[in-house]
Amino acid sequence: MRYEGDRAVDLKICYIGGGSRGWAWKLMSDLFLDGSLSGELRLHDIDREAAATNVLIGNRLFGRDARPRWACRAVDDLGEALEGADFVVASILPGSFEDMGSDVHAPERLGVWQSVGDSVGPGGMVRALRTIPTYRGFASEIRRRCPEAWVVNYTNPLSLCLRALYEEFPGIKAFGCCHEVFGTQEFLAEVAAERLGIPLPRRREIAVNVLGINHFTWLDAASWKGVDLFPHYRAFADEHGAEGWEGKGPETWKTSYFESGERVKMDLFLTYGLAAAAGDRHLAEFLPRRYLRDPQTAREWMFSLTPVSYRIEKRKGLLALAKSYAAGEEGLVPEETGEEGVRQMAAILGLGDIVTNVNLPNRGQIPDLPADAIVETNAAFSRGAVRPLHAGALPPQVAGLVSRHLWNQEALHEGAFAEDPEACFCAFRNDPMLDEVSTPDARALFRDMIRATLPCLPDYWARWAG
Amino acid sequence: MRYEGDRAVDLKICYIGGGSRGWAWKLMSDLFLDGSLSGELRLHDIDREAAATNVLIGNRLFGRDARPRWACRAVDDLGEALEGADFVVASILPGSFEDMGSDVHAPERLGVWQSVGDSVGPGGMVRALRTIPTYRGFASEIRRRCPEAWVVNYTNPLSLCLRALYEEFPGIKAFGCCHEVFGTQEFLAEVAAERLGIPLPRRREIAVNVLGINHFTWLDAASWKGVDLFPHYRAFADEHGAEGWEGKGPETWKTSYFESGERVKMDLFLTYGLAAAAGDRHLAEFLPRRYLRDPQTAREWMFSLTPVSYRIEKRKGLLALAKSYAAGEEGLVPEETGEEGVRQMAAILGLGDIVTNVNLPNRGQIPDLPADAIVETNAAFSRGAVRPLHAGALPPQVAGLVSRHLWNQEALHEGAFAEDPEACFCAFRNDPMLDEVSTPDARALFRDMIRATLPCLPDYWARWAG
Amino acid sequence: MRYEGDRAVDLKICYIGGGSRGWAWKLMSDLFLDGSLSGELRLHDIDREAAATNVLIGNRLFGRDARPRWACRAVDDLGEALEGADFVVASILPGSFEDMGSDVHAPERLGVWQSVGDSVGPGGMVRALRTIPTYRGFASEIRRRCPEAWVVNYTNPLSLCLRALYEEFPGIKAFGCCHEVFGTQEFLAEVAAERLGIPLPRRREIAVNVLGINHFTWLDAASWKGVDLFPHYRAFADEHGAEGWEGKGPETWKTSYFESGERVKMDLFLTYGLAAAAGDRHLAEFLPRRYLRDPQTAREWMFSLTPVSYRIEKRKGLLALAKSYAAGEEGLVPEETGEEGVRQMAAILGLGDIVTNVNLPNRGQIPDLPADAIVETNAAFSRGAVRPLHAGALPPQVAGLVSRHLWNQEALHEGAFAEDPEACFCAFRNDPMLDEVSTPDARALFRDMIRATLPCLPDYWARWAG
Amino acid sequence: MRYEGDRAVDLKICYIGGGSRGWAWKLMSDLFLDGSLSGELRLHDIDREAAATNVLIGNRLFGRDARPRWACRAVDDLGEALEGADFVVASILPGSFEDMGSDVHAPERLGVWQSVGDSVGPGGMVRALRTIPTYRGFASEIRRRCPEAWVVNYTNPLSLCLRALYEEFPGIKAFGCCHEVFGTQEFLAEVAAERLGIPLPRRREIAVNVLGINHFTWLDAASWKGVDLFPHYRAFADEHGAEGWEGKGPETWKTSYFESGERVKMDLFLTYGLAAAAGDRHLAEFLPRRYLRDPQTAREWMFSLTPVSYRIEKRKGLLALAKSYAAGEEGLVPEETGEEGVRQMAAILGLGDIVTNVNLPNRGQIPDLPADAIVETNAAFSRGAVRPLHAGALPPQVAGLVSRHLWNQEALHEGAFAEDPEACFCAFRNDPMLDEVSTPDARALFRDMIRATLPCLPDYWARWAG
Repeated sequence: MRYEGDRAVDLKICYIGGGSRGWAWKLMSDLFLDGSLSGELRLHDIDREAAATNVLIGNRLFGRDARPRWACRAVDDLGEALEGADFVVASILPGSFEDMGSDVHAPERLGVWQSVGDSVGPGGMVRALRTIPTYRGFASEIRRRCPEAWVVNYTNPLSLCLRALYEEFPGIKAFGCCHEVFGTQEFLAEVAAERLGIPLPRRREIAVNVLGINHFTWLDAASWKGVDLFPHYRAFADEHGAEGWEGKGPETWKTSYFESGERVKMDLFLTYGLAAAAGDRHLAEFLPRRYLRDPQTAREWMFSLTPVSYRIEKRKGLLALAKSYAAGEEGLVPEETGEEGVRQMAAILGLGDIVTNVNLPNRGQIPDLPADAIVETNAAFSRGAVRPLHAGALPPQVAGLVSRHLWNQEALHEGAFAEDPEACFCAFRNDPMLDEVSTPDARALFRDMIRATLPCLPDYWARWAG
Repeated sequence: MRYEGDRAVDLKICYIGGGSRGWAWKLMSDLFLDGSLSGELRLHDIDREAAATNVLIGNRLFGRDARPRWACRAVDDLGEALEGADFVVASILPGSFEDMGSDVHAPERLGVWQSVGDSVGPGGMVRALRTIPTYRGFASEIRRRCPEAWVVNYTNPLSLCLRALYEEFPGIKAFGCCHEVFGTQEFLAEVAAERLGIPLPRRREIAVNVLGINHFTWLDAASWKGVDLFPHYRAFADEHGAEGWEGKGPETWKTSYFESGERVKMDLFLTYGLAAAAGDRHLAEFLPRRYLRDPQTAREWMFSLTPVSYRIEKRKGLLALAKSYAAGEEGLVPEETGEEGVRQMAAILGLGDIVTNVNLPNRGQIPDLPADAIVETNAAFSRGAVRPLHAGALPPQVAGLVSRHLWNQEALHEGAFAEDPEACFCAFRNDPMLDEVSTPDARALFRDMIRATLPCLPDYWARWAG
Repeated sequence: MRYEGDRAVDLKICYIGGGSRGWAWKLMSDLFLDGSLSGELRLHDIDREAAATNVLIGNRLFGRDARPRWACRAVDDLGEALEGADFVVASILPGSFEDMGSDVHAPERLGVWQSVGDSVGPGGMVRALRTIPTYRGFASEIRRRCPEAWVVNYTNPLSLCLRALYEEFPGIKAFGCCHEVFGTQEFLAEVAAERLGIPLPRRREIAVNVLGINHFTWLDAASWKGVDLFPHYRAFADEHGAEGWEGKGPETWKTSYFESGERVKMDLFLTYGLAAAAGDRHLAEFLPRRYLRDPQTAREWMFSLTPVSYRIEKRKGLLALAKSYAAGEEGLVPEETGEEGVRQMAAILGLGDIVTNVNLPNRGQIPDLPADAIVETNAAFSRGAVRPLHAGALPPQVAGLVSRHLWNQEALHEGAFAEDPEACFCAFRNDPMLDEVSTPDARALFRDMIRATLPCLPDYWARWAG
Repeated sequence: MRYEGDRAVDLKICYIGGGSRGWAWKLMSDLFLDGSLSGELRLHDIDREAAATNVLIGNRLFGRDARPRWACRAVDDLGEALEGADFVVASILPGSFEDMGSDVHAPERLGVWQSVGDSVGPGGMVRALRTIPTYRGFASEIRRRCPEAWVVNYTNPLSLCLRALYEEFPGIKAFGCCHEVFGTQEFLAEVAAERLGIPLPRRREIAVNVLGINHFTWLDAASWKGVDLFPHYRAFADEHGAEGWEGKGPETWKTSYFESGERVKMDLFLTYGLAAAAGDRHLAEFLPRRYLRDPQTAREWMFSLTPVSYRIEKRKGLLALAKSYAAGEEGLVPEETGEEGVRQMAAILGLGDIVTNVNLPNRGQIPDLPADAIVETNAAFSRGAVRPLHAGALPPQVAGLVSRHLWNQEALHEGAFAEDPEACFCAFRNDPMLDEVSTPDARALFRDMIRATLPCLPDYWARWAG
């Protein structure tokens, strides 16, 4: 890598999970639109065909420029893909949708419903058991091949992926990115527009102080220019909390699994005086079960349980689209995605400081949460550094809810690193979603879920699961 | 106070709640049996008659010696009682048994059952709202009258009483004592006798490392002489966990509200690998509701819900006994109580170091719990000092359970100090026992419970409760 | 205060020390040039005439606009001046130049030379004994009159002024500003220009990570755009370290007390691998005495000892200039001062986020320095908040040097709050500048220095100094 | 290892440096006198003859019992000596007395005098450069051969030996023992006897709270039974501070290098209000140079500089004595040594709890010193655990002095682990003893001292020293 004036050239970005049809396309789009970076984009995926297809798509996209700034290349060997990389981006599906089907739906037999199943709860826990060994492998290879690279993770459970990276290679320069806070900023922009009678502000105009853990993040301050939005949010929630808010977008929670009536969020604000900053379907999985007792309860609170069958169906469409893009039948239209990844890279390269929210080990940015736990706060990105802002303490009533999960994730993390199935079961069993389940039922469920995903787990699980 | 050889004489002990028929009698008994201390015991109680009766009882007891070492005196004015005291002992009933009746039984209408109702849960929370202002008053008077006194608290909720003392007067030298850990040591002595084929060891022979919060305390090590008891406890729990353990004492959980079959404790040990160290009836209130869904569940787990009616009945007997003692019809028989209070005082006076468990603000003795929270660990008592031992970290799976309560108590504490009823409600509503209750139901319950105990609360509650 | 579009109007700024001819003029200048703020500027000074003169100067300046945005007013009563203020700026001279004369020059009789005498060393310590009670008074009045105001301090010793504000009123929203880091950025800009062959960059283009304490601040990273400046700084220091660097400005250390040959700074960089970020004359007072054994040593290291006689002389010229400005004979020419105060205010009002360096209590931003100590780091300014960035740890070899002062300042702070002259003497005696002085000599010096400034000290000093 | 009643039998103790004629003989003596432990004592030494001689001496001593409880054996291979050990004792001479001669005396050419030269200062630093790689080797072998063993270190620099053990093997169960605090307790016993008119108390009757770092340890409380000794110490120091105190023992500072007139200690108490708890000759090396400017200054303060020639001479006598012991010409007379090692082992085996002072990584026992630094406090020894007591904070005026060394030791530690000679030089140069020395002089001294001890250092030093 070197600089030419205000541009960084000859960059090497390694994309692990480079066959992805979501994040990979977004990254390509943002790299195309940004003018300050150029170099090589190496796509690595265990689905080699997907990576190859994305190479075609990417090179078509970058080829729109007379002198393309980026060259895509599929690299089958992870080590080779990482060799000398400046940035590593990781967004993988740990296992298949079939594995995820077990994560999400198996617990339903005990009356335990999950709206997403990728963060906490029995589904998030078993998913983590797949990602942790995988991420240990990434970290160990990064240490060998590109110890100075910056690593951006998008995979869920995001906190435990990062925790594994840092445990395996304490010197790693990794952070985790998630757009759930952005969605809440957009909702607050709607609140501001509605209450202040102004045109809808852009997301970045909504200044927030972020603190918490990924998918269970909170804001203790939000403003638009000089205006404190919290009193307005309170009035808004008083007005709309009961019947929900459909939003300004084309989709609503009735038409999309990813939307909600924001009722959970408004109820939390009225209860705790703090703004929860993730989609309701994520929040509900971290909270006492009154929002997610069963599908009917979720409907009353105006959010949906995303069935894995939907994901499978959606993938079919994406595969067709990928083929069409790759063949040049239709083109990937580059549009600003709203993601921060490329801006973050540019800032780290010294090409313009930014402050944005990010997941990092706790070095005191949230002083009442344990050190080294992965927490989400704002951070300042500048040349060679991502420095978290001191976010302050979570109010105690919220700190208790957050801590319960954070410690339990830590227990799972330790169990997985110790390769101790019983310790992992202890953490699984201890997830609040299973509070009312007896230990024998929990054990049987865990064993079945482990068996369903055994090919994606290290060998010692086979011995344990018998 | 001064020394005569190895004895401390002219001590002044102020007993707040000196009319008590439990702790006060125990203290008198232990002071009578101990030979190293002498002086004046001032009994202060808002129930003046009870204090006066105890003066008679105490002076009869101490009068058994030719040259009585202690003189009892009732002191109606708190300030006068505290003036120049060397030690302050506090064990009060916050409010009446009628108030406690509301604490314990009112939530039953929502299906929320409490086995004790004095620590956490809706009952513990409302009880704390009575004790916090009272203890602020104690702290402020202690600062004025005897800032160098050592303060020993026995009142529940013990953690929040101490938290209030330290918040109001940060320089206070207060600690909290509870015998629940002792009971668990006795149980482990039975385990040792059973598994090792030895005579029942004395409690103090069971060495333990204590860590957690009061009534939700844990042991991560227990030994008898050179023997690690944990493997033996595991074998014992495997054998007796299902059908319970009746113990060696005269009483069982079928005949006494204060006994249990130790099933909860053994189940926790098998689940978490750590020994919970309080009575099952206390533990169940801190845990997911599977042990305390309803009275039937409690019976299955072999412990009882203590009805306040029982306490009222029992008091009648104690009143009669007190009269009889006071009149000299029968004598208070001095016998070693097993409590540590007098040994602790002697140690603080430089008359023999001891290590025992105690509740103190967290100064790092449990590094993964928040600073200043009241935690329970072992501490070394020596001249002029009570120094907690570094107990180490709670394992994460348990730290999450403990943190949830600890933070929520902190929220209530802050709300009560800020005199902010809505903040107090937020903490009340957030108690895990109410996880399944809707916010409107929780609010109605809180209001009713507040109204039931309004005379014991500061004025601003009347305005809030309407 | 309220908003009109993107402007904040009806602001109330209270300037304590408003008769100042340095910082006050700079603030007026920056307020005049900035277009986003308007309101009332209240000048409070115990030198009423100076404040009145500055009112004339300020109103002339603001009157250049057809519709002046700011109105100046002298307010003699501090309480009235603070009432309802949005911002409080404090830059005072604690005592007179005569008091400062004793601070700086009295220790010379023991061979202890000070180049500034306002931060640490015997002079800084005695100066702090004057400011601490004064600042306690400010804090207590701010709590009463404008508890929500943001307080910007420029007075030295800056750390101990802030420490006193926070100790007296823990809820205060105060921070401390100093341009010494700016000067080092400018020096690094010269380094960059020299080594990279580029035009002199502007100060703000030099990105730095700031960590340390005021006047003994360090940078562990410095870059210009994508370029790491540390290797270039090393080469520069290797080349110029021995003979010094005269700089690009009109003044050199031979013509100005405020300039230096940067030899101390370069020597420190070569020794510690970290860039010290304050003027050499400040740095030398914090370091082992090899840079400041006597005036000759200082000259060899190419910096000067600022005699107080120079300050007295300079004041005469400023007084004449003030008169001329006030009379309108010549005008205060508004030019950008390079100070950050007004930009910081605008950011706090929500009118544009910035990141800049600032002094704040340590909440973990420098995790290896003690909590609550006043430390200097970068911070993000946004609506209603100044959040320090996590600066990381000081390398151990530097942490030891910084800690020695930081703890000693803490000792003085505690002694002054406890109103305990002997504790203050212990801190004074413990300053590294007196390491070679005997205790009796140190005591005699302290007593003489105290007597010289007795009118500026609380009464208990008179009793102590006899 | 196993238990027979109240005795632990079949223990394996590995003594590294087992040819030692000081600590090894003491340990044998204490093991002989103690009745509760038995097993095998493996003596490992790079001086094989010395180890063999000690085997003879030990077996003669233990053979006094009809049924000897301990068998001594020399084991040349370290790994074999450690295999399965229950305890490891380490007391080695790092290098020879010739190396120590350079450590202690080489800096004298720059006017830098050291009274001991084994802890800090240029001598302590270079000595540490020899011990750190050696101790890394020990730790790595202990991890492999006996990871559960308890490791007791006596070698100096004690702090850096322990730091190396924990860095190399974070799970090690190591602590460091030193009798300097005992000596101060004995001095305080003399103070008590003198002032209270009582017979000389035994050392263990002097209760102290210990806090600081090894050889620069402090007491913030000392008592005898109920009596606070600090007021008496103050009166004693006022009386004897100027002319010194010769003590009750047979030796004085005029006849023994290891005695002093306690003038430094008394001066520190009068200055800081805290009792320094090490021999004056150690303390002086940590303090500003006013106590140790040159040999004459030391004599005025009534302590001596121990020349290495004296150590060489003394060794001759010990060698002769060892031969005589080994040959049975005269017997090693077993007498209680006053050391705590054997009592500590017994406590760790569950055979009787004790509280005594010890060096351990800081886990919060001294909250104002950095985490993981090796600090000295009291600790509770019980079965399987050594738990430090919360000692509280060092007062700030002392914390600054301690921190300067502690951070500098950390810098040397990091440099040695990174195998970075320049980083090591930075720490060396930064030692307060060299504050007045120029960097070129310091560099030349360091290079010469390194060259003098090159055979005892890892290879990379030879490359650096040229």
